[in-house]
Order: sequence, then structure tokens, then C-alpha cells
Amino acid sequence: MTPNRLRTLWQSGGAAVNGWLAIPNSFSAETMAHQGWDSLTIDLQHGVVDYQAMLPMLQAIQTTETVPVVRVPWLEPGILMKTLDAGAAAVICPMVNTREDAQKLVAWTSYAPRGTRSFGPIRALLVHGADYPEEANDFVVRFAMIETAQALDNVDAILSVEGLDAVYIGPSDLSLSLGCRPVFDDVDPTAQQAIEHILARAKAHGLVAGIHNGSPRVALERQALGFQFLTVGSDARLMAAGAQQTVAAMRAQAPAQPGSGY
Amino acid sequence: MTPNRLRTLWQSGGAAVNGWLAIPNSFSAETMAHQGWDSLTIDLQHGVVDYQAMLPMLQAIQTTETVPVVRVPWLEPGILMKTLDAGAAAVICPMVNTREDAQKLVAWTSYAPRGTRSFGPIRALLVHGADYPEEANDFVVRFAMIETAQALDNVDAILSVEGLDAVYIGPSDLSLSLGCRPVFDDVDPTAQQAIEHILARAKAHGLVAGIHNGSPRVALERQALGFQFLTVGSDARLMAAGAQQTVAAMRAQAPAQPGSGY
Amino acid sequence: MTPNRLRTLWQSGGAAVNGWLAIPNSFSAETMAHQGWDSLTIDLQHGVVDYQAMLPMLQAIQTTETVPVVRVPWLEPGILMKTLDAGAAAVICPMVNTREDAQKLVAWTSYAPRGTRSFGPIRALLVHGADYPEEANDFVVRFAMIETAQALDNVDAILSVEGLDAVYIGPSDLSLSLGCRPVFDDVDPTAQQAIEHILARAKAHGLVAGIHNGSPRVALERQALGFQFLTVGSDARLMAAGAQQTVAAMRAQAPAQPGSGY
Amino acid sequence: MTPNRLRTLWQSGGAAVNGWLAIPNSFSAETMAHQGWDSLTIDLQHGVVDYQAMLPMLQAIQTTETVPVVRVPWLEPGILMKTLDAGAAAVICPMVNTREDAQKLVAWTSYAPRGTRSFGPIRALLVHGADYPEEANDFVVRFAMIETAQALDNVDAILSVEGLDAVYIGPSDLSLSLGCRPVFDDVDPTAQQAIEHILARAKAHGLVAGIHNGSPRVALERQALGFQFLTVGSDARLMAAGAQQTVAAMRAQAPAQPGSGY
Amino acid sequence: MTPNRLRTLWQSGGAAVNGWLAIPNSFSAETMAHQGWDSLTIDLQHGVVDYQAMLPMLQAIQTTETVPVVRVPWLEPGILMKTLDAGAAAVICPMVNTREDAQKLVAWTSYAPRGTRSFGPIRALLVHGADYPEEANDFVVRFAMIETAQALDNVDAILSVEGLDAVYIGPSDLSLSLGCRPVFDDVDPTAQQAIEHILARAKAHGLVAGIHNGSPRVALERQALGFQFLTVGSDARLMAAGAQQTVAAMRAQAPAQPGSGY
Amino acid sequence: MTPNRLRTLWQSGGAAVNGWLAIPNSFSAETMAHQGWDSLTIDLQHGVVDYQAMLPMLQAIQTTETVPVVRVPWLEPGILMKTLDAGAAAVICPMVNTREDAQKLVAWTSYAPRGTRSFGPIRALLVHGADYPEEANDFVVRFAMIETAQALDNVDAILSVEGLDAVYIGPSDLSLSLGCRPVFDDVDPTAQQAIEHILARAKAHGLVAGIHNGSPRVALERQALGFQFLTVGSDARLMAAGAQQTVAAMRAQAPAQPGSGY
Ligand SMILES: [Mg+2]
Ligand SMILES: [Mg+2]
Ligand SMILES: [Mg+2]
Ligand SMILES: [Mg+2]
Ligand SMILES: [Mg+2]
Ligand SMILES: [Mg+2]
Repeated sequence: MTPNRLRTLWQSGGAAVNGWLAIPNSFSAETMAHQGWDSLTIDLQHGVVDYQAMLPMLQAIQTTETVPVVRVPWLEPGILMKTLDAGAAAVICPMVNTREDAQKLVAWTSYAPRGTRSFGPIRALLVHGADYPEEANDFVVRFAMIETAQALDNVDAILSVEGLDAVYIGPSDLSLSLGCRPVFDDVDPTAQQAIEHILARAKAHGLVAGIHNGSPRVALERQALGFQFLTVGSDARLMAAGAQQTVAAMRAQAPAQPGSGY
Repeated sequence: MTPNRLRTLWQSGGAAVNGWLAIPNSFSAETMAHQGWDSLTIDLQHGVVDYQAMLPMLQAIQTTETVPVVRVPWLEPGILMKTLDAGAAAVICPMVNTREDAQKLVAWTSYAPRGTRSFGPIRALLVHGADYPEEANDFVVRFAMIETAQALDNVDAILSVEGLDAVYIGPSDLSLSLGCRPVFDDVDPTAQQAIEHILARAKAHGLVAGIHNGSPRVALERQALGFQFLTVGSDARLMAAGAQQTVAAMRAQAPAQPGSGY
Repeated sequence: MTPNRLRTLWQSGGAAVNGWLAIPNSFSAETMAHQGWDSLTIDLQHGVVDYQAMLPMLQAIQTTETVPVVRVPWLEPGILMKTLDAGAAAVICPMVNTREDAQKLVAWTSYAPRGTRSFGPIRALLVHGADYPEEANDFVVRFAMIETAQALDNVDAILSVEGLDAVYIGPSDLSLSLGCRPVFDDVDPTAQQAIEHILARAKAHGLVAGIHNGSPRVALERQALGFQFLTVGSDARLMAAGAQQTVAAMRAQAPAQPGSGY
Repeated sequence: MTPNRLRTLWQSGGAAVNGWLAIPNSFSAETMAHQGWDSLTIDLQHGVVDYQAMLPMLQAIQTTETVPVVRVPWLEPGILMKTLDAGAAAVICPMVNTREDAQKLVAWTSYAPRGTRSFGPIRALLVHGADYPEEANDFVVRFAMIETAQALDNVDAILSVEGLDAVYIGPSDLSLSLGCRPVFDDVDPTAQQAIEHILARAKAHGLVAGIHNGSPRVALERQALGFQFLTVGSDARLMAAGAQQTVAAMRAQAPAQPGSGY
Repeated sequence: MTPNRLRTLWQSGGAAVNGWLAIPNSFSAETMAHQGWDSLTIDLQHGVVDYQAMLPMLQAIQTTETVPVVRVPWLEPGILMKTLDAGAAAVICPMVNTREDAQKLVAWTSYAPRGTRSFGPIRALLVHGADYPEEANDFVVRFAMIETAQALDNVDAILSVEGLDAVYIGPSDLSLSLGCRPVFDDVDPTAQQAIEHILARAKAHGLVAGIHNGSPRVALERQALGFQFLTVGSDARLMAAGAQQTVAAMRAQAPAQPGSGY
Repeated sequence: MTPNRLRTLWQSGGAAVNGWLAIPNSFSAETMAHQGWDSLTIDLQHGVVDYQAMLPMLQAIQTTETVPVVRVPWLEPGILMKTLDAGAAAVICPMVNTREDAQKLVAWTSYAPRGTRSFGPIRALLVHGADYPEEANDFVVRFAMIETAQALDNVDAILSVEGLDAVYIGPSDLSLSLGCRPVFDDVDPTAQQAIEHILARAKAHGLVAGIHNGSPRVALERQALGFQFLTVGSDARLMAAGAQQTVAAMRAQAPAQPGSGY
């Protein structure tokens, strides 16, 4: 079985440049997969994508070396297990607010005896190899999203759950929950402190830290701080920003602020 | 941001004529959207529609002034949030049976500090405007379905939950739960009493009341009682009824009873 | 192999009541198929349906005794053959204007030695039986649309092509081509004369005559004239007409003229 | 209303040969439905199929006498109810581990007063008949999957829940949970004992027992033990096994072990 | 009926900024439609889009004021007519090489007596208004692509066909046909001369001239020459270019040359 | 640019084992792609697959080393060019009956100056490399189907067309056209003579010969005769045959004749 390239990259101290897929289409996914991202995350939460649309997107990503990641809509066993069966190499779970949430995440994504994931890796077996059943627990990367005040309070209880691999910070949700403006970059000081605190605790617990960014500038700053999984730009946002610039250039007027979408 | 036309209509004392979409297709949705309904509800619960099929239906409705409403399959955070992110202006949640259910409904559909809705209004931002993040809590209309004996018992506890905008009555479920025949119109007396009680309590709590009807006749009667959101007729039922009448006319025989489907 | 119920009906002197499917969806098709039509025609020409959407619609119709008919977009061999392979029991071909057109229609829909249909009845074999290869030429019904002034001039040359089973008249196209208003019913006198002439010539050549109607009233009149395949009402039109009536009833105003769509 | 052919078969002491559908497509489903299976199960759990893809598959199965069964992804009310509304004649629910789980399964799939299933059988009404509302509770077959050590401990508490019709054993999950190899056939002795124990307890409680098998050989052995619902072979596995044999024959080499997929 | 905004713009001497849609998805189409383009062209020729995928894309564009244009795969009556029935306000036809080609294009897109377009404007009627039948001939814009040496030879014979509204130049095809490099911008001198010749002849015949560009820089140059329909940038190219820049910024290396795709 | 593995294989004197895809689904395609075929042909002619369904199937095949081939529905420029733009490495064109047909096939699939293929290799550029424009003419493999009496008469005129790479024989169509039974294997003597004649002429003209087979036995015989592209088994047939054997084994009765479908 081919190792999970995210793990390989992290073990060598590297940081992954992650793209984001919100358009429910396999051709846009494949086009993105050819642009050099380390990984691409299909967003089943806020992207307009559901399970069936995700499937050919996973296939499209699989035509390249890019690691397929999926953000599930919620901490629910059905979709977490179906996502892994479909071949996702990593899952990002939103709103992991308590230790119990984190335990569920690990349990539902791990085969016995480590967890209670149901057995039936239909596409995973096809694409990851015949030893997937034995290797899956160690192959799959589990990201818990720390993005609320409640999660912040429980951060050590969450991060000490065995089997969790990484945290992923949603700056806009975290900000909102802390009473700050819901933005990806240049967050308010309270949110910034929280972000740095989560990063520090993740490091302390031996976990990788990832974060959602609105621009390469901020992503690079955060990489410098120690983040090792940096989302920057989604299919829809990159397309919209490019379109805005193009239309503005044609109209000889200043472009709208790029990146104003979600 | 354009105001929610349902709110505008209600504030002027009007009642909304609501159509129902059970066919998972954007062309039938667009055809319905051109027939003059105030709002159209995409039914993810009993309609044969899921999230991905709903998306182009929302787009099709958006080509007109008709307000897009979605009935979610169940009180679950994932689908409630995805539905709003996709641009629904109102959500109808089935089987709200307790005060806690109603609180969850409000929380999951409201951004902090009012609730815990996760931030990522990908299509809502596109179609409702750049100020959607600030305005969404007040823009979105939340309907709790009161349709069981249990909900009837808890009606004041439910209706007094802050942030709830409206109730929606499913006469067939309510009837069934009360031991009556599961019909939309001409319900048994016990069910009729329950319906009028819910309406009275909604008014008392300052909420709008809506109800599912099988015919304009009954819908108009209920409008006269004070209901302000009147569903009457679905895409599939209207098509089937028209087909039955046509075939019967061609065969020179009495038509089957129209409206015998769900 | 089950006989083609259209042929059986016609041989007994009966007329088929045909519904029309313009919505590219299998649930609307199945709903229509349960309303008692003798046949349902999936419209690949003016309906918003293409081949892939047609496939589950054919399956949906197949859950009932209704005969599946397809109107192809144009006189082209690829789609004619794919349609039959997919299990259509009859095909309607638009704009058959010359004897050569009619000969192509027959050839492309008939196996050698009668024609040049390519062999590969993948779904037809599944649903019509193992003897489909031997029986297909006699099973399939071929309708040539006579709907232009040119076709009218060539009517006998067209209708005398061996292997043609039926004509189908498009009153709006025929009207337009003759300089009349493009309507289904109550056509202008010139168009009415043309319709009756085509009917008479079809009878003379031993062919069945079919026609598109906008209402049961006119369909019954035309049936009385001798037409044996009467389309009346489409999924989209019936739904829209029902919706208009419903909305009008709710608004206590006169409904828009039903049937104003295509 | 036509009786549920699974019930009829079981009442006569027979065993159902059940095929499995993991490919999200209506043509593969229809092809399978023509091969003589008593029932076909659409797998929403480990198959790569979701609700919307299931719908035309149900229609495709409905073109034959084969009984349509659905395995839902998880014990959740939304999908259980939508699946029945869409016309499934039986549901298989994974991971029923406690008496409470089994009670939920029965409640969510039964109309009041027996349960709390919401009323809206949109396609079920169309395909099963106008008396579906009255007959549905007795028509629908409910399978609880007993496939964990916990369920084994609770087996009598689960099986004595009124309204449950059958158990379904997932040998690979059960094996995994008991510390054995996750296989369908030729399971480890501990798993074999568990399987026989569940079978015995099902019989004692008057329930039908079903099981997932990897080959006809083992399925026949288990049928001889008393199992009356025998899954053997899925669309994807049969296709892959046939392809492996074909390629191996062409390469004049031994085929890979057939059936190595999920 | 709302006038065709392309015609309005051109009549005022303006030039349309046209975006290009190659991704077969309605959400990417809707996102593009919100970026300020005058028109968006769905590419059924070289985009990976077919008729059924186009339909919700047309609906998505219709949620805005952007004019929906479609490039058909080839000069064929079936798809040209279906495209207009689906609501396209303009069609671009590739490889119009002879006067006869241009005559067919006009005939197939015009109702009698001007042409032979078949009547059935199913969605056009819905979205463009009840007077579409009378106004369609003058509403629809017909672009003939002049993009081969043969077309260049026949340029006056083509451009003088009555009913043709505009030419559209494909610089890469034209270049290839003239023995030059197949690029959009900075074409070889022979191709440049051809482009300017076509522009001049279009002006002489009173037609609008449009052209495909790879960058705003060249599009603006060509606008200055007199082109009034300027395609610049496609959904997929803009997304890919943005992704390349982002990844390059993250890797602190020079980006790949943007715009290297089709 | 990676060489076309079909060419590489043939140049070394090898024969390609080709699988056939008739199910319009990317998961079945991907499952097939993992079974060791040299190439897989997506059948747009007799398979129930159209362009849009083909796209994710091509992506699924691309996850492996298997060569993606497409059989187009008919000799038409639109679909031939779209198929190549979508990344097909080879095309099979049915019913090439005359020298002119073969010339069109070559012209429409070759860029100038060799042909008239329109430029826009949107996905081909992505998956085959940046030098696709220069290399495409030599990369793409063009199969002309010789499968009628007319083609047999014209065999040398067809095979001598420059740019044609291979012939592909459809034994059932060829048989039918010659008055024989439409079977893949064990054809009638007249058809067998024709097959051997076409093979001999292909060899004489330096072309590769391919043929459709119903079983490995016959495919191996034909390989021994000199055929170098051997289709044996389709997704749907392999699945159906496996299902028949399984059901028969369970019923302890003789299986139906496998391979009785198309
Ligand atoms: Mg978040
Ligand atoms: Mg209800
Ligand atoms: Mg017509
Ligand atoms: Mg299991
Ligand atoms: Mg071109
Ligand atoms: Mg053939």
C-alpha cells in the first residue's frame, strides 16, 4: 500500500499546500488536481457538494499524485464511513467541541479494536491496495476542527484523544464564536491569540496543525508559525477572482476586491 | 440585501401562496416558479429530492421573484446548514416535538452569538448579497413543524423559543399521531381542534402559522382562519391530477379522484 | 416477445391516448406512467431531454404497461439507433420532408436485409425478450412527422415508403410552414385542410395517423376524424396549467389561459 | 396491494436469494434485476450510492418481480423514512447494537400508533397501491444488522423488540468486532459460533435470519443451517471477478483470486 | 419581451465582454454570472459540456442580467434548435466554411418564412416571454465562426447571407488552418492579416465581429480595432491560472505560465 | 508526452486485451480499469452511454495505466472531436463503408494540415501533456469499423486511406449484413471468410486488425490468426453472466447460457 503522502510530507517536516473544492464537478476537480497542490479537500460542509458528486471528484484527483481529503458536513458516522470507503485519505470534521466529539471521530474512522468503523472499503480497496484493511487505521488522517469557544476551552481534552492526527482551524467560525469578524485572514486579536494557542497545544500534543487561509500571504505567515497544512484558495474563489480581474481589466476600472466570496 | 419577501408579505398582513416541489429537477422547478406562487418549497423530506438535486432547483427558482423554501429531511445540523448555505430563504423542519428541538432548530440556523450555525454561506453570499453574514439571522425564516401529539402537548414550550418565526402544520402526520385519518383536508374533528389550537397559540406567541392543504378550497378556509402560509398543490400532484382529467376526458369516463397521491 | 401494444390497439381499430414527456426526470415520468395513458412519448426534440436523461425515464415507464415512445431530435442515424437500443417501442422522427428522408428513417430503424440498423440492442434485449433480434423490425413502430409545406407536396412519395408505419402531424410546425399561426388546436383553415389531407392519404396508404393536440376537446374531434394516436397534454403543461388554476383560485382571480406553454 | 414477496416466500418456508447493488446506476441495477434474484439490495452504506442515485435504481428493479431492499447508511430517521417513501419493500439497518437501537428502527419505519414514521409515501403510494398507508406497517420488512460484540451481548434484548422482522448478519464486521479476520466466508471459529448463536436466537424469537456471503458454496451451507435470506455476490464483485477470469484466460495465466473486493 | 442585451449594447456602439464556460456545472456557471460579464458562452464544442449539463447552466446564468450564449458542437439542426428552445439568446456555430453553411445556420435558427426552425420553444417561452414566437427571429443572435482558410476564401459569400448577425473568429483554428501556431493571442502575421481582413469584411457587410482572446491585453487591442464581442478567459482557465499563481506563491517559486490550457 | 500504449504494444508485436464499457458510470468503469485490461472502450454507440456520462468514465480509467478508447455513435464530426478533446487515446468509428467515410474519419480526427480537426483539446492537454497539440495526430489511434457488405466490397479503398491506423470488425453487424446470424463468436462460414479477408487486407495495408468477441476462447483463436486488438466481455455482460451463474448455483439448477446479452 502506498503511504499517505500527507504523512510522508509531515514526517519530513514539510507543510502541505492544500486546495479547496466547492464546485460539485469532476472536471473542475481534475483541472485543480493538475496545478501542483499537495492535497485537495472536497468540502461537503460549506461547498455545494454531496456524497454522490464527491465520488467522481475523488476519481479525478486520483488521476494525479494529489492527496484526496474530504471535509464532512458534520460529525456523523454514516457520512464519515462512506467518505473513507470512497477512498478519502484524510477527513476533516467540523465543530469538534468536546473530548467526546473527538473520541467519536476517531472511533468512527478506525476499525476494531481501535474503533467501530464498519467494514466495507469498496473503493478504498480498489485504489489504495489489497492491504487496506490492515493498514487503514494508520493510513487515514483525522483532522478535528477547533473552531468554537467551547472547543477552545476543551482544547487539551480534545487534542489528547488517542488516534487524532491533526487539528484544522476555521478562522471565520472561530472568530464568530469569539465575537470577532468572520474572516479567514487578518483576524481580530482575540481570534489571533486563540489560533496561536491552538497551534501551540497541537504541537505540545504532537499533532499537526492546519488552517484555512484567504491568501498566500497569510498562509505563508502561518506556515512560518508552524502550521503544516495550509489551505489557500478554492476552485470557486480562484475562478471568481480571476473573472473579476479580467472584467475589470476590460472595463479599465479597478477590480472589485478579490476573494470576497466564501 | 433584498428583504425576505415572505417577511415583507407577512408584515403587511398578507398570506403567502406556497407551491411544493417533489420532483428532483430544475426544469420542473423553473416551470413552477413562473406560475405566480409567492414561494416554492423544495421537499427534501417526503419529496424524492436530495441536496445535490436541490441545488439547481434553487437556481431555477432564483430566476424569478418566488421565495425559495426548503423542508429538510430531519432536525439535523448538517443538512440545515447546507441548505441555508445553498441560498434557501426559509427552512421548514419536520417533527419539532419538544422545546429542545425548537432550540436546536434556531441555534443551528443562526450565527453566533444567537446560535451555532457554521460560517460558509457560499451560494447565499452570491445571491443574497455581500451583507448576508450580518443580515442572515434576521433574513432566514425558520418554520417548526407541529405535527404530533407530543408537539401538541409541548406547543407553548416550543412556540416560546426565541428566534422561531413560524409554525407549519402537517395535517396528515398530526392526524395520524392523534389517531385520525392521514389526510390534508377535511380532517377528523380531533385533528381540526388541534389545528385550530396550534393556530391560536402561534398567534398568541406572535408567530406566523402555515399549513399543508390538498385543495384551494380548504386552503382558503384556513387562510380565513388566520393562516398566512398556505401550501396547496405539488408539482407531482398537479401533473398527475391534470393527467387523470385528460385521460378520463379522452376515455369519456369519470376521472379518478384527483389528488389521491401524496 | 410481448407484442407492441400500440400495434395491438390499432389492429383492433382503437386509438391510443398518448402523453408527452418534456421534463428530464424519471420520477415525473413514472408518475405520468401511472395515470392511464396508452403510451408516453419522451420528447428529445423540443423537450429539454437528451439521451442520458431519457434512459431512466424509459425504465420508469417500463414499470407499467404504458408503451414507451421517443421523438428523436432529428433524422440522424446515431440517435435513432441508440433510442431503439435503449428500448423504445416506437420512434417519432421530425421533419420528414422527402421520400428519401422516409427511406432513411425506415432503413436506420430496421435490421438487414430490410435496413441498415446496427446490431446491439443492449436494453431492448433485456426488456423486450431474447427474440428481439428476429422480431424487432416488426415490433418497432416508425412515425414520420409530416409538418412542412414540402412534406405536404411529397406526401404520397413519403407515405408509400415500405416499412413506414404511421404519420405524426405537428400542427404548429405545419401551420407555420403554411403561413398560419403556430398553434396545436383550432388551426387556421389552410392548416386544417392540410391536416385532413394528410389523414386521408395516410388512410389510403394503410398507415396510422397521429397528431399533437392542445386539449382533449380537439383530440376527441380529431379521433372522430380517424386519427388513432392522439397526444394531449405534456407533463410540464399539465403541471403549469394546474398551478395556474391553483394560484388563481387562491388569489380569487381568473386564471391565466391554461396551456399557453409549448 | 401486492404482498411483499419476501414475506410470501418466507411464509412458505423458502429462502430468498439476494443480490447486492453497489454501483450507483440504474442500468446496472436493471441488468441485475433480470437475472432471477428474489431480491436486490441497494447498499447505501458501503456501496458508492446515495439517495438520489438510488431512486432510478429502485425504478429499474421495479420493472421486474424482484423485491427492492435498501441498506441504509446508519440508524437515522431521515434516510430510513425517505427510503421507504421511495418504495423500498425492506430495509436493512447496520449496527443495531442495543434494544434501544432496535426500537428506534421499528418506530421510525412504522406509522402511528405502532411508531413515528412521518407520513408522505410519495413513490410507495404510486408503486405499491392506494392502500399503502393502511398496509405499510405490515408490508415493510425490517432487518436489524447484528454485527458487533455489543449486539451479540444484547441479542435477546434486540430480537425481542416487537415489530422487528429479521436479522441480517455482516460476517466481516462481526468478525472484526470479535477480533477475527474480516471475511464473508470461512470465518474464524469464534465468529462462526456467534453466527450460529444469532441464527438460533432469531429462530427462537420467530425472526427470519439473513447473512452476507462471498460465494454460493457458503451461502448454500448457511441456507442449510436455516438462514432464509442469502446475499451472494454484488454487481461490482461479479463484474470484477468475470473480468479477472477473462483477462487471465487471455493472458494464459492463472486468474487472480476472484471475489477479493468488498 | 425583453430585448436581447447584446443587440442593445452593439446598437449603442459598445463591445461585449464575454466569459467562457467549459465546466459542465451550474454552480460554477452561476458564480461566473455574478462577476460582471456582459455575456457568458457555454461551450458545447470544446468545453466538456453537453446539452443536459447546459440546461441548469442556462438557468444559473438567467439568475442574473448576463446574456446566455451557446457555442454548438457543429453545424447540425438538432442541437442548434434544442439550444434555442432551451433559451440561448445567441448561438455561435463553429466551422462555417461556405455560403451554404451560413444559409443552413440562418435557416435552422429562424422560424418560417425566414427559415425552417421547428416550433417548440419550451424554455425560451418561459424565460423570454409569451411573444417569443413572433420575436424570436429578431431576438436570437447568430454568430458564424470564420476560422479556416476555406472560410477566408468564401468570406464575402458567407457574410452576405441574410439573417447572419455576426462573425466569431477562433484564432487558434484559423492559425492552424493557415499553417501558423494555434494560439489565441499574438498570432503569426499571416493569421493576424486574416483576422483583420475578416473584421474589415464584417464591418463592410454590417455585421458585428467577435473573437476569442487569451488575455485582456490582446482583447483590448482587438476591441480597439473594432471587435465588439470579446471573449477573454474561461472558467477552467481562470481557475487554473489562479491556482498556479497560488501554488507558486506558496512554494516561493516562479509560477508556470498562466493560461497554458485551452 | 507519454506514448500511446496501444501503439507501443502493437509495435512490439503484441495484442491488446480490450474490455468494453456499456454501463454509464464512473465507478463501474474504475472497477473494470483495475482488472488488468490493456485498454477499455467506452461504447457510445450501443452502450447506454452518452458524452457527459463518458467524461467521468474517462477520468476513472485514467487513474490506471489502461488505455481509454471510445466508440462513437456514428461518423459525425461533433462527437468525434469532443471525444478526442475529452482525452480518448483511440476512437472506433462504426459503419465505415466507403473510402470517403474513411477519409472523413481521418480528417475529423487530425489537425491541419493532415485534417480538419478543430483545435481545443481541453482535457487532452491536461492529461496527455503540453505537447499534445504537436503530437496528437500521431498519438491518436483511429479504428474504422468494417462491418457491412458494402464495406467489404470497398475494403481496399478504405484501408488505403492515409492516416487510418486500424480496422475493427463487428462480427454481428457484418454477419447480419451478409445474411448470417448476428453473433460475436462461431459466426457462419460466409462471415468467417469475410473476417479473414478483412484481416488479410488489413495486414497487407500495414494496419492493425481488431475484433469483437464473445468469449476468451474465440478471442484467442482470432489472436492466433493475427488480430491484435481483442475485445472480450463487457461490464454488463460479465456482471450478468456472473449473476446468472450465482443464482443458478443457489437454485441448484443449470445456469442460463451465459453471454446471451449484447
Ligand atoms: Mg467552520
Ligand atoms: Mg409531516
Ligand atoms: Mg414539429
Ligand atoms: Mg457491516
Ligand atoms: Mg474553433
Ligand atoms: Mg456494429
